[in-house]
Amino acid sequence: MTSESDGTAIADEEEYDRIVAANARYAKGFALAGLTAPPRRRLAVLACMDARLNVEEALGLAPGDAHIIRNAGALATDDAIRSLVVSQQTLGTRQVLVVAHTGCGLLGLDEPAVRRNLADRTRHDAALALGAFADLETHVHAQVERIREHAWTRDTLVRGLVYEVETGRLREPA
Amino acid sequence: MTSESDGTAIADEEEYDRIVAANARYAKGFALAGLTAPPRRRLAVLACMDARLNVEEALGLAPGDAHIIRNAGALATDDAIRSLVVSQQTLGTRQVLVVAHTGCGLLGLDEPAVRRNLADRTRHDAALALGAFADLETHVHAQVERIREHAWTRDTLVRGLVYEVETGRLREPA
Repeated sequence: MTSESDGTAIADEEEYDRIVAANARYAKGFALAGLTAPPRRRLAVLACMDARLNVEEALGLAPGDAHIIRNAGALATDDAIRSLVVSQQTLGTRQVLVVAHTGCGLLGLDEPAVRRNLADRTRHDAALALGAFADLETHVHAQVERIREHAWTRDTLVRGLVYEVETGRLREPA
Repeated sequence: MTSESDGTAIADEEEYDRIVAANARYAKGFALAGLTAPPRRRLAVLACMDARLNVEEALGLAPGDAHIIRNAGALATDDAIRSLVVSQQTLGTRQVLVVAHTGCGLLGLDEPAVRRNLADRTRHDAALALGAFADLETHVHAQVERIREHAWTRDTLVRGLVYEVETGRLREPA
């Protein structure tokens, strides 16, 4: 829990209340009770968490169509692989799309500086790589390769795309 | 790449082409070029990858509002913590909502059986826990606690919610 007393805690409470109210309106018009768990399009998307990217809208996906996995940078981490394995083995997906994007916060991030700052402030040096990368196109190819090469996900079609936050367009990495 | 010759590879190609076409339409009406990277509502959501859950719509979030992190089960894994750290330290979020849901594929999953089956078929026994859990309410509380207790995310307001795939409703875990 936050212990700030400068008004930010109140703002956070208000944001939570706003979400609860928005969800009450959403639930009133809810018509998706008939959906089942296995994704209709047998697709899993691994995308960045970026706030500007609406995966469903940018890819034309409806509720029930696809698993959507998201993390900072659309990294094919062990956890993303875990999610893909669950997706494929228990719910039948068989295609993966990796979607990174222009203007990513991890692109060119000075990771040592961020970690040093955190370690100083928290007095704790966590063994947690943040996943910064230097080149977007290389990065997308590397994530695709990692999924293609993992023993438990390698029988899948895997493709990578770059989402342009400036245009809304998806394009193949160079 | 898949090497199947029974038509599933063709179906996967068609699905990819459909996404490319849907995105071309999306990009034509694109009006979000003015958004900046830091989430407007200073919020990060950690939700399950489930295809039935549209996080933005269920929580009333617009593009630019929040980081959305998703994996199988809404688990507060090291990778989810990594994403939250990036979210908070480089892009200024300060509130976390964990959203798990009813009917999750990991709830009551016979994980040893799935892993044994995979190991047999791939002839590779990957050291990859899938994250199965036995009780939804306990699960949500445990993820919230993990984020609250991590040295690098502990100065945040963290809450957990259950999304009901049957009703569209968010509720606090019991």
